[in-house]
Amino acid sequence: MSSMSRLTVGMQPNQESGGASPPHPGGSCRYPEHPALLRPAGPWFSGRMEISRKPPTGKGPAETFTGEVWVDPITRGLPPSPLNAAAVHFTPGARTAWHSHDGGQTLYVTEGRGRIQARGQQIVELRPGDVVFAPDGEEHWHGASPQHFMTHLSITEGAPHWGPHVTDAEYHGGTH
Amino acid sequence: MSSMSRLTVGMQPNQESGGASPPHPGGSCRYPEHPALLRPAGPWFSGRMEISRKPPTGKGPAETFTGEVWVDPITRGLPPSPLNAAAVHFTPGARTAWHSHDGGQTLYVTEGRGRIQARGQQIVELRPGDVVFAPDGEEHWHGASPQHFMTHLSITEGAPHWGPHVTDAEYHGGTH
Amino acid sequence: MSSMSRLTVGMQPNQESGGASPPHPGGSCRYPEHPALLRPAGPWFSGRMEISRKPPTGKGPAETFTGEVWVDPITRGLPPSPLNAAAVHFTPGARTAWHSHDGGQTLYVTEGRGRIQARGQQIVELRPGDVVFAPDGEEHWHGASPQHFMTHLSITEGAPHWGPHVTDAEYHGGTH
Amino acid sequence: MSSMSRLTVGMQPNQESGGASPPHPGGSCRYPEHPALLRPAGPWFSGRMEISRKPPTGKGPAETFTGEVWVDPITRGLPPSPLNAAAVHFTPGARTAWHSHDGGQTLYVTEGRGRIQARGQQIVELRPGDVVFAPDGEEHWHGASPQHFMTHLSITEGAPHWGPHVTDAEYHGGTH
Repeated sequence: MSSMSRLTVGMQPNQESGGASPPHPGGSCRYPEHPALLRPAGPWFSGRMEISRKPPTGKGPAETFTGEVWVDPITRGLPPSPLNAAAVHFTPGARTAWHSHDGGQTLYVTEGRGRIQARGQQIVELRPGDVVFAPDGEEHWHGASPQHFMTHLSITEGAPHWGPHVTDAEYHGGTH
Repeated sequence: MSSMSRLTVGMQPNQESGGASPPHPGGSCRYPEHPALLRPAGPWFSGRMEISRKPPTGKGPAETFTGEVWVDPITRGLPPSPLNAAAVHFTPGARTAWHSHDGGQTLYVTEGRGRIQARGQQIVELRPGDVVFAPDGEEHWHGASPQHFMTHLSITEGAPHWGPHVTDAEYHGGTH
Repeated sequence: MSSMSRLTVGMQPNQESGGASPPHPGGSCRYPEHPALLRPAGPWFSGRMEISRKPPTGKGPAETFTGEVWVDPITRGLPPSPLNAAAVHFTPGARTAWHSHDGGQTLYVTEGRGRIQARGQQIVELRPGDVVFAPDGEEHWHGASPQHFMTHLSITEGAPHWGPHVTDAEYHGGTH
Repeated sequence: MSSMSRLTVGMQPNQESGGASPPHPGGSCRYPEHPALLRPAGPWFSGRMEISRKPPTGKGPAETFTGEVWVDPITRGLPPSPLNAAAVHFTPGARTAWHSHDGGQTLYVTEGRGRIQARGQQIVELRPGDVVFAPDGEEHWHGASPQHFMTHLSITEGAPHWGPHVTDAEYHGGTH
């Protein structure tokens, strides 16, 4: 009964200080680690600071990806900020279409083995820890190796411009 | 001898097409996965696209952090882009000082357990998958739990403004 | 030319000390971080210690998984050790069939959101940092959430025993 | 009030089916993702399957490590199983002492750059995805690079045998 009482308090945190309801539904649970901590179950404003639980994973659309690609969004991309960040999971053989970004694109490989190619250049292998910067307008593609899963962060500051899919011949290095 | 010959080719990739030397030293090695792939050992330009190996890990300076904090930089922060991204590892009990960012700060928790607090608000617990957006000028701090390691990505688009260190009393939730 | 000479030494490390060829093909490359370090490109024995590059990612077979599951093997499982460890990536909605393991199974969630259920019990949500131990013979299943990617380590010390696939009704919690 | 009622049910899951109290304290919270899911706040038995929240991070003891090392335990190591698994974070320059394991040791590098050396052999660089097997009794050490953070999984099936610390001269490759 006493643990329930503590939990009840956690469900209505803003009533403790006479404040208004949280701006998003979802409530909160206190966890046993420390009684002074909140652990909201849903989006939460602390002052003007917003804390969100993990957003749903999205699927890379067939128009701009080949193979199975799964995207965990990080930033919300609210105007006027052009910032967009996501963790992108490529299953073996999967890759983006040819594309470029206004303002460029930064990639940071966190897992597995991958490939990247700028238009007219050789394919380069990607491994965890690698950092790539593709500048404004530089057409390129990136993806997993044929036999390896690969995850990278993608950070962009402008709109993408999508081109054709990467053919199997291009992906396997038959053409440069 | 034949494997050495293949490697030699990989060491001088731009000579294959009669090009100039790569803009950064370091050379490259072909790996056996696929003979058409490059795996440069150092920074590399492919067209105007730059591929860098993992940058060195830096230590969070004592002026702005309490405890041991290790920073793996992701972006280079070259002008005119204000973008700065890094993976930040907090050892148990370590935390930033109070601070805010021009343009705000996005955090994405990838490992462990942490804490975050906006000035005048309660401490909120952080877990992997959580996304935080602290808007322009919102003073806050973040760090690991007392008994847990924590890693988050940090993405900012403007200069930080550092305030006082987070006292042990603040960190442990004695004050709200 | 001088950088090639350094690399050539790295290609034949055992000849420096008059040793035999490495037991596996693949050669090695010296990297510029430190001239005394080896970075073999393929499997390598250092004394009796074996160092292997990332093994290929495998696909979870349709007989024992529902949906797309990708497996990065860690241990080799050589006799007489029964140890088997792997990092298993579940795309949203994907899950194992019902199964148990001789000697039990340990799971360690490293990313995303998942689900687990023991036969006759309620479904429990899994998050990063969670550790599960399913003892010898305990029938259960695990997988990703419907809207989230999930990765866990799996460590087993005995043979699996596979049962029926997890139906959509079971997966969505319609039955306990 | 209705959200509180749902939560109350989640606090006493075993009373729904007339069962006994959970074997560990901690209670549970239902999360909004799906009403049929449990998300216990503490250790939990589902049938004979045990689900634990992230265990606390421990510090590598000065007797067996040089520099700051942080250990996230995965397995419980309950008798009679000799299995021990952990995620080990090495700060730059940190390393184990010389040691071996009964039954051997498997390492799986998940982040950063590291070093490993078997007694009498050259130092080899470690990178994410690398798998190392040090067989029964093979004396070796492993750790981070001087300028990089490194995390690896460690899986063992027997007792460690610790030797002397790795000197700076050994660590920097001055001796083989």
